[in-house]
Amino acid sequence: MNREALKKAVEKELTRSRWEHTLRVMETAAALSKQWGADPEKAELAALLHDFCKFWPDDRMRSLIVKYRLPEDLLEHNKELWHAPVGAEVVREELGVTNEEVLNAIRYHTSGRPHMSLLEKVIFVADAIEPGRRYPGVEELRSLARQDLDRAVLQSLDNTICFLIERGQKVYPLTLFARNYMVEAVKERTQPKTKEESL
Amino acid sequence: MNREALKKAVEKELTRSRWEHTLRVMETAAALSKQWGADPEKAELAALLHDFCKFWPDDRMRSLIVKYRLPEDLLEHNKELWHAPVGAEVVREELGVTNEEVLNAIRYHTSGRPHMSLLEKVIFVADAIEPGRRYPGVEELRSLARQDLDRAVLQSLDNTICFLIERGQKVYPLTLFARNYMVEAVKERTQPKTKEESL
Repeated sequence: MNREALKKAVEKELTRSRWEHTLRVMETAAALSKQWGADPEKAELAALLHDFCKFWPDDRMRSLIVKYRLPEDLLEHNKELWHAPVGAEVVREELGVTNEEVLNAIRYHTSGRPHMSLLEKVIFVADAIEPGRRYPGVEELRSLARQDLDRAVLQSLDNTICFLIERGQKVYPLTLFARNYMVEAVKERTQPKTKEESL
Repeated sequence: MNREALKKAVEKELTRSRWEHTLRVMETAAALSKQWGADPEKAELAALLHDFCKFWPDDRMRSLIVKYRLPEDLLEHNKELWHAPVGAEVVREELGVTNEEVLNAIRYHTSGRPHMSLLEKVIFVADAIEPGRRYPGVEELRSLARQDLDRAVLQSLDNTICFLIERGQKVYPLTLFARNYMVEAVKERTQPKTKEESL
């Protein structure tokens, strides 16, 4: 499927406002790619497809989690998480998108994960800071994304965890693992391990 | 070893201020046991012993984590976590305390865990609210502990996670698992599952 056909396929699945969000994530992902050296083609493609299943009914999503043998703990956690890993499988199967880097950027755009690739970080952050986003701390995150992509990923994961805790909702363990990983990654980059710590 | 001998053994291992904290945790644990129906003898014993290894040197603690085959991920997380699981093994071996409920209350008094027993909850909360504790939110937690022990455990776990996130420190996964478990436990107690949710 060419890019125009993919665009039409995505637009059909989304509400008007979610489609406009998608277009803004594409622009933001392109800009972040340019700044941080990710592949802009892949970034735009992942951004275009990242919310493909966002409005699919819960029952259909539940069946697809089982069908694609996705982690079963998803079923016990917030439904908001589902469209990312399900979306990756669906765009592969229904839209013929096979690039694993692109699929992983879709798959982990909500939860994050340890060892995120540059492309995954770009999509994760673009989704959080696209110009239509309004929430406490978004301006700080936008400015961080221009200075340090890793710290922006960490800040966004922290925001998510604190947001869920304040609302008394469960936190998906992978999001904590992603966040703990980024704490170490940012720390090791700025202060190399001492001999004692690395033993 | 009788209670007086145990007291002497513990006092010897602690600083003066930590010993006074221990005495206050014992009193608080006794009061919480009375209110919530835990065994006050076991609660006082667990409280007496909970910080036994608090001031042991890191190298010794590291060796004991290996010796007792404790979860290896402890070594990658905050050292503040170590004295609880190590302490449980040490008081069994060195002080002859064999009651598993008491040992678990010591073992999980810092991290928490899913499926905490009543005794574990009492020690966990007593440690957090004993009258010498001073931190933002401690008064709210004291008042919650008088109304609802489970919600006090949840609030204290939330406080710990948010405290660590604010300081850019890693969060031990077991603490998140404990907290997610308590979110469900508190929710299920107040709003029984609908048929759809329980499928």
